[in-house]
Amino acid sequence: MRKSRAEAFSDGVFAVAATLLVFSVQVPDVKTNLGHALLNLWPAYAAYAISFATIVVIWLNHHAVMDNIKAYDRTLLYLNGFLLMTIAVIPFPTFLLAKYLVAGHDDAPAAVAYGICMSLASLSFTLISLYARWRDLFVLRPNFYVFTIGQLLYPLGTVLSLVSTRLALAIYAAMVVYYGAYPLVYEARARRRGSARL
Amino acid sequence: MRKSRAEAFSDGVFAVAATLLVFSVQVPDVKTNLGHALLNLWPAYAAYAISFATIVVIWLNHHAVMDNIKAYDRTLLYLNGFLLMTIAVIPFPTFLLAKYLVAGHDDAPAAVAYGICMSLASLSFTLISLYARWRDLFVLRPNFYVFTIGQLLYPLGTVLSLVSTRLALAIYAAMVVYYGAYPLVYEARARRRGSARL
Amino acid sequence: MRKSRAEAFSDGVFAVAATLLVFSVQVPDVKTNLGHALLNLWPAYAAYAISFATIVVIWLNHHAVMDNIKAYDRTLLYLNGFLLMTIAVIPFPTFLLAKYLVAGHDDAPAAVAYGICMSLASLSFTLISLYARWRDLFVLRPNFYVFTIGQLLYPLGTVLSLVSTRLALAIYAAMVVYYGAYPLVYEARARRRGSARL
Amino acid sequence: MRKSRAEAFSDGVFAVAATLLVFSVQVPDVKTNLGHALLNLWPAYAAYAISFATIVVIWLNHHAVMDNIKAYDRTLLYLNGFLLMTIAVIPFPTFLLAKYLVAGHDDAPAAVAYGICMSLASLSFTLISLYARWRDLFVLRPNFYVFTIGQLLYPLGTVLSLVSTRLALAIYAAMVVYYGAYPLVYEARARRRGSARL
Repeated sequence: MRKSRAEAFSDGVFAVAATLLVFSVQVPDVKTNLGHALLNLWPAYAAYAISFATIVVIWLNHHAVMDNIKAYDRTLLYLNGFLLMTIAVIPFPTFLLAKYLVAGHDDAPAAVAYGICMSLASLSFTLISLYARWRDLFVLRPNFYVFTIGQLLYPLGTVLSLVSTRLALAIYAAMVVYYGAYPLVYEARARRRGSARL
Repeated sequence: MRKSRAEAFSDGVFAVAATLLVFSVQVPDVKTNLGHALLNLWPAYAAYAISFATIVVIWLNHHAVMDNIKAYDRTLLYLNGFLLMTIAVIPFPTFLLAKYLVAGHDDAPAAVAYGICMSLASLSFTLISLYARWRDLFVLRPNFYVFTIGQLLYPLGTVLSLVSTRLALAIYAAMVVYYGAYPLVYEARARRRGSARL
Repeated sequence: MRKSRAEAFSDGVFAVAATLLVFSVQVPDVKTNLGHALLNLWPAYAAYAISFATIVVIWLNHHAVMDNIKAYDRTLLYLNGFLLMTIAVIPFPTFLLAKYLVAGHDDAPAAVAYGICMSLASLSFTLISLYARWRDLFVLRPNFYVFTIGQLLYPLGTVLSLVSTRLALAIYAAMVVYYGAYPLVYEARARRRGSARL
Repeated sequence: MRKSRAEAFSDGVFAVAATLLVFSVQVPDVKTNLGHALLNLWPAYAAYAISFATIVVIWLNHHAVMDNIKAYDRTLLYLNGFLLMTIAVIPFPTFLLAKYLVAGHDDAPAAVAYGICMSLASLSFTLISLYARWRDLFVLRPNFYVFTIGQLLYPLGTVLSLVSTRLALAIYAAMVVYYGAYPLVYEARARRRGSARL
């Protein structure tokens, strides 16, 4: 299996899923005062931004992991397919969160659904990582603990949704910042040591 | 015709069709008890997962067949276009199945529609394979019988839908497992023989 | 401008437009007799198939024209952007045709809209071809008359829609067959002369 | 980070966002006189055309900027992610504008939303440009003032929407022409000087 074509399909799914997120912001159907209706949609804008940033960050980390793999076998391709299935479903809980945060009720089940999808995405990443270690497919062994954190915090957020939706959403947003910031810190450290490459 | 561009278009159609499947899970429009409504959607989640897995598996097998072809001529490109037409339509019977399985009635015609689409996808694969053999375009002759099985079982599932929707769905799910597992077995055998490449 | 990236964007638009056509077949919302409702959708299936085949054929011919161009300048990229705009809009008249053919009324204005979009796609192709000739950007001069035929017949179909929708649809379907068959004939002739390449 | 994969993801988002714009033209649901309903949709066609042209022009300029960058670091990839987030959201204000221009009321808030999205896209471009200058990542320093103009005129259009929607739309359309025409002028000048490359 040439890596280039597996990447083209993966990049396609990531790009389409990210772009479909725009439907989480529903065009208001009002007779008057559209400006007011647009301001009330702010939780939908926030849900869009968090999910888009999440997909971009997962895509970058997916890329970093996959670049580090010597060769793909079928099992790895299926695990990658499972990851893509969890990415492609992200618009659904985002639509849910956007709709019910705007509606102002039943946002807890929506946050649970969001957390379950993110936990599955995190799980698929861990499975890819574990399998590639087991089969010795990595060029360089990546830092395993980084992925473990998502493995713990996304399910935690899911459970906390039942207590406080806001707390859960704060955790989901924090995870994007964490996974986005980690490589930046790493890169800054590498730059100080005289190497510009990540 | 450079193969790379035909592949880019094919990969694009596969990736978009797979990602559009997310619309098979419709956002519930409820005043209360969203959690309950989300649990009732389980047949939609199953339909999403089966169709996504089907597209990933067809994409992998499409890739295996196409990599094995020396050169594309126009006829092959049209047969490939017919295959893509059957892939791009998969979201429709998936939406049907998800909607009517959740609604709890008329799931038999939905399962028939699903089976017809899958039979057409299977037929297009067989036509590509037959044409490439006839024109001697294959590098290595693939195992023909593998595709013949889909050619028989998808129409069988379609007919059985009229007797039992569950039985038909079990056949469709089994086909994904079969087409997914076959290359794994093949790969494991190759690995035992000392060759790591599929 | 590297050609590869212009092609990636073009292929993406073609692939997404083709895959969005699936929404021309609307999931029926019935209480009973889904089978009957699905059979009544046959004009939608036909519209889907004709538009999908049209996009595949245009994509193949687009590829043939673009492969034959030495270098892209900005003007050519804008003309290509205009072509992509006409391709990306094809789902709209297809939705129109599918809806109003199924509804059984007002299919003439839908066929006019379809014809206008196809005439614009045909016009953009002619503009690309004329510009590339004028600036001497072609490697080999393509047969100009092939494109001229679409330039005449799509507007003719548009006008005839006002007299008979069926006649217009027959012309649109014939155009796909013509543009699809022309290179096949050409290829068969080349094969007889001992060259396998198109 | 290999540039090719970052470009594939970017091109995918641009292509999908452009193609989703087709949904800004809503299929009329009428019992009679579809022709009249289609003519009344002309502001939706205009909104589609302006947004499609805007995305094509931004994509071409994005390409010109990115081709000119030696190496991507994580920060640049995040800034690119922010740009893509603003591109992927363009269908939303386009849907708004199309719907409320056709409805004939509340088009001012829609034009404000459009202007805000365009201002953010313009801002993300400026941030990429500033960062690449600061880190000395450019091969050739691009003309900075070109981007500054969008930086000023899109917010101006946004504010003017509150006074006159038509004036704001004229500014948005003029920006596409400006950003599209600038490289053409530049290219024509380069051609006169004997260099064909942009």
